[in-house]
Order: sequence, then structure tokens, then C-alpha cells
Amino acid sequence: MALTAHSAEFDVRPGEQRLPHDPAARAPDAGLVFIGRVASPWTRREDCPKNTMEALGRGKTARLKIDEPYRAGLDGLDGYSHLILLTWLDRAPRDLIKQTPRHAETARGTFALRSPVRPNPIGLHVVPIVSVNVAEGIIEIAGIDVLDETPILDIKSYFASTDAIADATRPVKA
Amino acid sequence: MALTAHSAEFDVRPGEQRLPHDPAARAPDAGLVFIGRVASPWTRREDCPKNTMEALGRGKTARLKIDEPYRAGLDGLDGYSHLILLTWLDRAPRDLIKQTPRHAETARGTFALRSPVRPNPIGLHVVPIVSVNVAEGIIEIAGIDVLDETPILDIKSYFASTDAIADATRPVKA
Repeated sequence: MALTAHSAEFDVRPGEQRLPHDPAARAPDAGLVFIGRVASPWTRREDCPKNTMEALGRGKTARLKIDEPYRAGLDGLDGYSHLILLTWLDRAPRDLIKQTPRHAETARGTFALRSPVRPNPIGLHVVPIVSVNVAEGIIEIAGIDVLDETPILDIKSYFASTDAIADATRPVKA
Repeated sequence: MALTAHSAEFDVRPGEQRLPHDPAARAPDAGLVFIGRVASPWTRREDCPKNTMEALGRGKTARLKIDEPYRAGLDGLDGYSHLILLTWLDRAPRDLIKQTPRHAETARGTFALRSPVRPNPIGLHVVPIVSVNVAEGIIEIAGIDVLDETPILDIKSYFASTDAIADATRPVKA
């Protein structure tokens, strides 16, 4: 597997491994529609929080702007404390199958990581809802870890009964 | 909005609302690749559990079969207790923006629900990992609420710190 640089922003580090093909260049198996965009405070990658917890710590809210045809789908969402946001991380490469996270010593499989670089760059974010305006298609959320104008794929209500595994464990050095 | 039946399996109920277009018929904004398939005990919709909690209660494991090029991406996943599985619910219609769940009195927005019927039918499942075989591309999980041969889009490690909101609340009648 060649270890040549992919781009200035996403250099390949030692131990990392590319896919034999670039999923972005393949004939797709299924097609997505964008239902809106995130209005985020972050316009540069170096400013963007690396995960939701860090984003919430910044104390800056964000807005989800939903396109007109999809706004009726927000009806009833304001009864929930949290939502699950799925985004399309359109600025991430898709062809790295092993990656070495910053501050990690060894490369790990993409599916053991939450890196934006993955065959299907779908971002998953669990965030507190501040307010929902169905008519205008605006959801204010407590914070977000994606760049401004990131496309939105889906919003789901969060259910603690199935989604919250408080005692889930991870490797000591993950 | 016409309330004609869409299919025998997904009748439109009172209060439900269709999109003005069918996302499945649109030119896609982005393309997905399938990285594998779920081997599930459920081959008929009427047998399939309606959510992960019900699936785990059935006591039947399932397997995630990952295609060869993507298997290296599983390295390190076995250190986690739970994973997040994203599936492509390829047998669900995509054009219903308000829906009346079974046993519910009124219709609600699709994004306030976890129905498989949504503009981008991406299924989100938090499940306990039983075992991971990287070389064969097989993950055994404790249970699943999708039909056999459902395509897999992504696997992510589950982090209680950002994904588990144990005190998240929902409407009393949700």
C-alpha cells in the first residue's frame, strides 16, 4: 500500500493503509439527498472541535437549517431533550482504512475510530436541542463539531432506552 | 397532499403527509458504497423486531459480514463493548415526511421518529459486540432489528462519553 500524501490536510502517517479503490470515485450503490445544512461557528478545520464533548465545552450554539420540503418532518421534535444528527462530511477523504489518530502510537482500523475519514463519511452527533422552529426549518442546538455549511442527511429523536449505554467500555489506550 | 396508498406494506394513514418529490427518484447529492451486509435471523418484516431493545430481548445474535477491501478497518474494534452500526434500509420508502406510528393517535414529523421511512433511510443501531474476526470480516453482535441482507454503510466505536445521555428525555406520549 503506497504511503504517498493524499492531501496537505490529510497526510498519510506511518502504519496507515489505503483502500485499493477510492469510494468517492466508485459508481454508488445508493444515493443520498441533502435535507439542509449546518450553520456552524467553525469555518476553518483548525478551529473546529474534534468531538461533540469538546464542541459543547466551547459554549457556542449552532443551527440546523432544513430545506422547505422537509420542514414538516420536524413536527414533534421539540418534545425531546436531545437529537441525533447525521451529517455528510463532504470535505473528508474516503479511502483510508487504517489510521493513526493524533497523539496515538499505532494505526487502527477506521471502524474502531470516529475519524471523519471513512468509506462513507457520515458524521454522527448526539446534541442537546435548544429550540425548534418548524415553519422556518431552524433547529438551534447547544454545539456542533462540524464545519459551517456541512450537509445534513438525517435527524432522529434520541432515546435513552436504546441509545444510551452508560457503562459501555473502550480500550484503555483508545 | 394525496393520501393514496404507497404500497401494501406502507399504507398512508390519516394525518400522514408525503413529500412533493420522492428522494429515491432524485439525482443524488452524494453517493454511498455498501461495505458489507447484515446476516440477520429476520427474513420477513412481520418477524423483525421494531427496535434494538426488542431485538436484544429475542436472544438471537446476528453477524455483520464485511467485504474484503474494508476488513482492515475492523482492527481494534474488539476492544470496545459496543458499536454503532449504520445500515441502508433499502426496503423502506423515502417520501413520507409525517407519519402515524402504530399505536399512536396523531401523525408526527419523520425526524421526531425512528421509523425506517425517511428521506435518507439510514438505520442507526447501538449493539453489544460478541466477537470480531478481522481476517474473515465477521462481527458477531448480540442482536439486530433489520432484515437479513440489509446493506451496511458504516461501523463506529461507541463512546459513552459523547454518545450516552442517560438522562435524555422524550415526550410522555412518544
